[in-house]
Amino acid sequence: MEEKHCWVPLPDHTHFSIYNLPFGIFSVGNNPKRLGIAIGDKILDLAGVASLGYFKTLQIPDEIFLQDTLNQFIGLGKKQTNQVRIMVQKWLSDQESQLRNYPHLLVDQSEATLHLPLEIGDYTDFYSSLEHATNVGKMFRDPDNALLPNWKHLPVGYHGRSSSIVVSGIPIHRPMGQVMPVGSSQPVFKASERLDFELEMAFVVGKENRLGQSIPLDQAEEYIFGMLLFNDWSARDIQKWEYVPLGPFLGKNFASSVSPWVVTLESLEPFRVNGPAQDPPVLPYLQYQGPRNFDINLEVSITTSDGIESAVCQSNFKHMYWNMAQQLAHHTVNGCNVRIGDLMASGTISGPDPGSYGSMLELSWGGTRPITLTDGTQRTFIDDYDLVTMTGFSGKPGYQVGFGKVHSRVLPAVQ
Amino acid sequence: MEEKHCWVPLPDHTHFSIYNLPFGIFSVGNNPKRLGIAIGDKILDLAGVASLGYFKTLQIPDEIFLQDTLNQFIGLGKKQTNQVRIMVQKWLSDQESQLRNYPHLLVDQSEATLHLPLEIGDYTDFYSSLEHATNVGKMFRDPDNALLPNWKHLPVGYHGRSSSIVVSGIPIHRPMGQVMPVGSSQPVFKASERLDFELEMAFVVGKENRLGQSIPLDQAEEYIFGMLLFNDWSARDIQKWEYVPLGPFLGKNFASSVSPWVVTLESLEPFRVNGPAQDPPVLPYLQYQGPRNFDINLEVSITTSDGIESAVCQSNFKHMYWNMAQQLAHHTVNGCNVRIGDLMASGTISGPDPGSYGSMLELSWGGTRPITLTDGTQRTFIDDYDLVTMTGFSGKPGYQVGFGKVHSRVLPAVQ
Repeated sequence: MEEKHCWVPLPDHTHFSIYNLPFGIFSVGNNPKRLGIAIGDKILDLAGVASLGYFKTLQIPDEIFLQDTLNQFIGLGKKQTNQVRIMVQKWLSDQESQLRNYPHLLVDQSEATLHLPLEIGDYTDFYSSLEHATNVGKMFRDPDNALLPNWKHLPVGYHGRSSSIVVSGIPIHRPMGQVMPVGSSQPVFKASERLDFELEMAFVVGKENRLGQSIPLDQAEEYIFGMLLFNDWSARDIQKWEYVPLGPFLGKNFASSVSPWVVTLESLEPFRVNGPAQDPPVLPYLQYQGPRNFDINLEVSITTSDGIESAVCQSNFKHMYWNMAQQLAHHTVNGCNVRIGDLMASGTISGPDPGSYGSMLELSWGGTRPITLTDGTQRTFIDDYDLVTMTGFSGKPGYQVGFGKVHSRVLPAVQ
Repeated sequence: MEEKHCWVPLPDHTHFSIYNLPFGIFSVGNNPKRLGIAIGDKILDLAGVASLGYFKTLQIPDEIFLQDTLNQFIGLGKKQTNQVRIMVQKWLSDQESQLRNYPHLLVDQSEATLHLPLEIGDYTDFYSSLEHATNVGKMFRDPDNALLPNWKHLPVGYHGRSSSIVVSGIPIHRPMGQVMPVGSSQPVFKASERLDFELEMAFVVGKENRLGQSIPLDQAEEYIFGMLLFNDWSARDIQKWEYVPLGPFLGKNFASSVSPWVVTLESLEPFRVNGPAQDPPVLPYLQYQGPRNFDINLEVSITTSDGIESAVCQSNFKHMYWNMAQQLAHHTVNGCNVRIGDLMASGTISGPDPGSYGSMLELSWGGTRPITLTDGTQRTFIDDYDLVTMTGFSGKPGYQVGFGKVHSRVLPAVQ
């Protein structure tokens, strides 16, 4: 990476270095929502920058930056959106930049409200971690044949609920639901007792295909605008009773939480790595060349109501068996159309060792092995008032391309 | 029903009697899309009616009727939208109505283009026909234990794809996909050989609940604006290989087809009937009072490329084990929020006798019993260039409240 010096003061360990510049939607006070770029502890107000004429050469209408979501901006296409990011990078690393004369364009993140950055048409959740699928298969099916026959032949996925995706900071109510108690033949209606997080990442679709036209794998990344952190909240007891034969439903759709900043695929380029070898070989439409995984360090913590934080999982996005290009090529191979703003989540990102398992289900091995938190309390699943935080970043201090965090507190069930 | 005489000439067997008055989105030539009401073979141009000041007393802005979808109109709430329908009913049955002086406001349906009437945020598909679930269970699982343990305790459902829902008339390409040939251990990529329809109906959500707040069953119908016909296209061979453990995905999301007119729940009131007794008793949040099913005659036909039409299924929406109020109460009991325009489909509507099975999978019993069409050809599933038509209506000639049709031709796979 060519070294760049940003004139905005940057904390040492910021996720939002000059090499990142992710896009989000923010507001201050009662002012209208608008597009911003995170830099250090600040947000560059892109609507303000646009109103000064800075994007005139790109012929982007100013109102594109004064929207409630990123969708219209993303719809300009990568050629334009990358130009915006590159121009901002140039201005912020140009010590003589005229932008320095407009300090009000750099808003403190602590003074801004960050909003759900996308209008999400459809949301798909994959199941692409070999370690996660194996763990779940061992627990619920056959330890010796943990993976189902289709798992290594296609990226298993299903459709989830768009309406209940919320941004980091919005609290989640423990869901009520129907569960079948162990040993009973009569279901009961109660608050979930097995509320769980799932550590995931999601990519944002940045370009549409026509219904009936598939996206070939070697073009798939042109359709990916960027990524964010995704907490796929899951009520294991509700899910277990309802999911046969048509898949997860109320066990998942009560809420999913996302981080507010969309990190562009371009800023993640330096962190490409090879994925795991795929054996048996996959069908030609899923075959790929070159590194398609990304080295992104991930961590999950639980902060108990006494304010004490405990890291419970360290994982990495590089472990994924199926990569994003494969997921998108598979998703559209039947002609299914995708739209700008669609989210496609990875599935739980578990690594090979127990400390890297991306859900309480795996960390507590189906609730049989409680984990002890820093404050001495134990958890098999998530308690009321726990704050679950996920973070993720690539690179080293000073050069980090990070996602910030998605954190959400669990509130008691609404009875 | 109080007898009303419509001054618009109505064909004897029209679905669109004066008692129906469903809402849709239409356009003529290059004129902008707008809201209309079907009456006989005509469409009443609501934007035109509004521009004459006819809705002034309701204080509805004219532009509500000049939209690409019904969503804003539905968002006015049932009190307002029912008023519009009742006023139109009064005008069309008032022989002295001033509207008769504006014949251009009645557009021939044959000269109009009908559009997808909704912006669909989320689409859910249920599996609520006992006969369908039993047939599928007999074929694929245990003939003596066809129903899974959860089936009679909750309305099983899953999330589907919104982006690929298209309006009647749009042709569908046979999907390509990954399938596992019988007796093989190596999947292949090919055009689906088991392309099927599913005869369904869907309801349109007309009112939102907040995330975290459930909709009690006795209020659920206030959240249902109306209904339409729904063809849940399915590729059985793709579905069979992919669907374990997370449910249908590419076997369904290549396309779903809907009828263009949304029939209001109010116009279906005279056709309420009791549903099947539910045994074992359901949990309190799913218990209901009074008739919650609707007597809607349904038919599916296949028109072969020689133009000869064969009826292949006669069913009725009254057979459903789980009713719409139960579906919506269940869907939101965990706090999941629904939005205006969301679609919730019933699942395949099969009746008790073989001629009432709502899919080729059941009609041909898994492909083992070909059915013979009027032109002498046989079908186990759907062939290229077949036109599949679904129709539905309640009431008798002169008093029908019908849905028109959803018809779609199957085109060969895009290789």
